[in-house]
Amino acid sequence: VGVLDADVTGPSIPKLLGVRNTPMGTPDGIIPCQSAELGIRVMSVNLILDDPAKPVVWRGPLIGNVLKQFWEDVSWGELDVLLVDLPPGTADAPLTVMQTMPLDGLVMITSPQGLAGLIVEKACNMAKMMNVELLGLVENMSYAVCPDCGKKMEIFGPSHAAEVGERFDVPLVAQLPIDTRVAILGDAGRLEEYDEAAVLDPLVEGLLSRLGEKVTVED
Amino acid sequence: VGVLDADVTGPSIPKLLGVRNTPMGTPDGIIPCQSAELGIRVMSVNLILDDPAKPVVWRGPLIGNVLKQFWEDVSWGELDVLLVDLPPGTADAPLTVMQTMPLDGLVMITSPQGLAGLIVEKACNMAKMMNVELLGLVENMSYAVCPDCGKKMEIFGPSHAAEVGERFDVPLVAQLPIDTRVAILGDAGRLEEYDEAAVLDPLVEGLLSRLGEKVTVED
Repeated sequence: VGVLDADVTGPSIPKLLGVRNTPMGTPDGIIPCQSAELGIRVMSVNLILDDPAKPVVWRGPLIGNVLKQFWEDVSWGELDVLLVDLPPGTADAPLTVMQTMPLDGLVMITSPQGLAGLIVEKACNMAKMMNVELLGLVENMSYAVCPDCGKKMEIFGPSHAAEVGERFDVPLVAQLPIDTRVAILGDAGRLEEYDEAAVLDPLVEGLLSRLGEKVTVED
Repeated sequence: VGVLDADVTGPSIPKLLGVRNTPMGTPDGIIPCQSAELGIRVMSVNLILDDPAKPVVWRGPLIGNVLKQFWEDVSWGELDVLLVDLPPGTADAPLTVMQTMPLDGLVMITSPQGLAGLIVEKACNMAKMMNVELLGLVENMSYAVCPDCGKKMEIFGPSHAAEVGERFDVPLVAQLPIDTRVAILGDAGRLEEYDEAAVLDPLVEGLLSRLGEKVTVED
């Protein structure tokens, strides 16, 4: 698996996966870094900055250029899946990605609020305009569970994700709870260790059924 | 009070405040729309689209241009405060806003995760580079309270906001809980009605003390 971090001005993948080394340039292209546990290949602006807290204050065309390079000049090698992590919105990063990479489809991430639905609808409409298939909708932060009394709380109010899914004929493949372990493992650069089957299984199965025969997954 | 919605590709202010009419062009400039309850003047891309779900698929320079227009061509009139709502990241919108508007300062919004801190540090460094004063740091989604047993939960893990504040010598003016009423009122376009003093008072006082004599507030 590879992850192309297309959130150039807010890159988070290296920190989440604890990847800190610098990608190496070779005659065959740039070699992506690999995560310790699963060997996930990663390319991100934050891997080429000397200080990860340095801001990338770039206007859009530059952002587009670096993304093209991450796709064309990186030796991704043999991969089952290359995941492209996009920032929210419909500006340069998604536009460049949809124009320059041969995508199998888009997975839209939303949250329960109707407001989030509005922004996601814009992105769904953009995907339609660009003829990119919508594989599925994933609702994040759907609910939290009180560790003391077990109460399931819809802390961002009732979900509006199903409405968005219906409007665009995209299946809502999963509704993910807020799990504090995700934040804690991510902050420690150990997100790969997250293994909560009740959270991950429906997500993986839902996405794989949509990807169909495009990928063969062994594990 | 006025709000300039600088999140061009993910505009949320009109929906939150229930503003739906179209700004009027006059010889003296574009007249911003007003919210029903408090008469907050609003300018947003979503007010000039015929369909609010339409995506704004623009490259960065166009985004910069529309923001310049929102500042230069809109008759904001007499205001105590003009709030400019920026998207996350350090791309075209914040760059244009910091370059073209005479800002009194920046309020940085973060969340408890160390990962969020990393992105916010980038924005703080950007503000420094552009000589824009950092007024304060506000932590959003700091905790939730179980409605059944009253348990206070740090659902995104322990806060890292204080560390960021210290590193940049910016006061952490408030830590806001997740309050479901915010989501529900916002989705109904009635966010103006939110009046939870325990949440709002420290935020308002903290910010006003930093704004100092720059504004005089009557209420």
